[in-house]
Amino acid sequence: MERLVLHEYARSGNCYKIRLTAAHLGLPLERREYDIMKGETRTTEFLSQVNPNGRIPVLQVGERLVPESNAACWFLATGTPLIPQDPFEQADTLRWMFWEQYNHEPNVATLRFWFGWIGEDNFTDFQRIALPLKRAAGLDALKLMDDHLAQHDFLVAGRFSVADICLYAYTHTCEEGGYRLADYPAVVNWLTRVEGQSGHVTLD
Amino acid sequence: MERLVLHEYARSGNCYKIRLTAAHLGLPLERREYDIMKGETRTTEFLSQVNPNGRIPVLQVGERLVPESNAACWFLATGTPLIPQDPFEQADTLRWMFWEQYNHEPNVATLRFWFGWIGEDNFTDFQRIALPLKRAAGLDALKLMDDHLAQHDFLVAGRFSVADICLYAYTHTCEEGGYRLADYPAVVNWLTRVEGQSGHVTLD
Repeated sequence: MERLVLHEYARSGNCYKIRLTAAHLGLPLERREYDIMKGETRTTEFLSQVNPNGRIPVLQVGERLVPESNAACWFLATGTPLIPQDPFEQADTLRWMFWEQYNHEPNVATLRFWFGWIGEDNFTDFQRIALPLKRAAGLDALKLMDDHLAQHDFLVAGRFSVADICLYAYTHTCEEGGYRLADYPAVVNWLTRVEGQSGHVTLD
Repeated sequence: MERLVLHEYARSGNCYKIRLTAAHLGLPLERREYDIMKGETRTTEFLSQVNPNGRIPVLQVGERLVPESNAACWFLATGTPLIPQDPFEQADTLRWMFWEQYNHEPNVATLRFWFGWIGEDNFTDFQRIALPLKRAAGLDALKLMDDHLAQHDFLVAGRFSVADICLYAYTHTCEEGGYRLADYPAVVNWLTRVEGQSGHVTLD
């Protein structure tokens, strides 16, 4: 494996996913921190040299770059037991990862960011009107996970995979966004199973 | 390949992606239509038997199901020239597909739906306040594509891939959401290249 550098904001769950994947695989990862609250991912230099989308994380592989957290996790996990070999199970792994970015992260992670970084007193009009909609969508996402995990030990193929890593990141911190884990007992048990995997590292 | 059934709403770009992937691969696809405007993907039967997330498309493979449009496209494209063999290029393909679902579809496709299916006179308060934010994010997404395609014939690895298919779906219909393709000349040329691939089929 070429030299790996993670361009990140350490408290972001999207960045943590990549560190967690690397930890499970025993891959060394250099880390370069950007303060998103100071606009450090929107500078001309960052946009031209790291990610034109102005976002972290970006995984640097030698001189090449992989933006998008789940694509970076997939890259690290390729050819390892973190991705099932069967094509259908691979697609099922990606199904949960796409679902995470469309239905879970924009609701569960975004409210963590709004409450933890912006603060309710500083919400814009958009944030005030979007809050109950994102809350409802986040509750639906956690319920969907809970229903699935009540029947399955892990998200895909009955064993720990990169899909579990990608969903773990913002699920285990969901209470920071005002969600209650106690409402999702199968999710709580799954979090414990994920944390019990050898190689696990915490967000902080 | 097992029997393939696409559970879809035909005018959805997310469903079209899967038809377009199958067409390029010469795979026969049975089609089952659900009227999302009548709530046909939110029935108890659909939620329990097709997709607990209440959304189309879902690709049925024999008796198994793949929700999430880009995961379904990936499944069909696995082992074909539509996915590069190199692991970095595979991750780069997924990078564009994750970016599509996070930065492009929620802005470019959503405004197509709002203007074409809901109608501006019927917008909720949320839609009125979200519109300029989604508009700005959609413009950014199209500009990012245009900058990339000014330097590259296709999104990944210099040749046509499933990433082009997934981005084509809602880019070629962006004017229905109030975007102007003429502002993105490199995108326009790329659309023509995608449409020129043998096997191409149109949305309608």
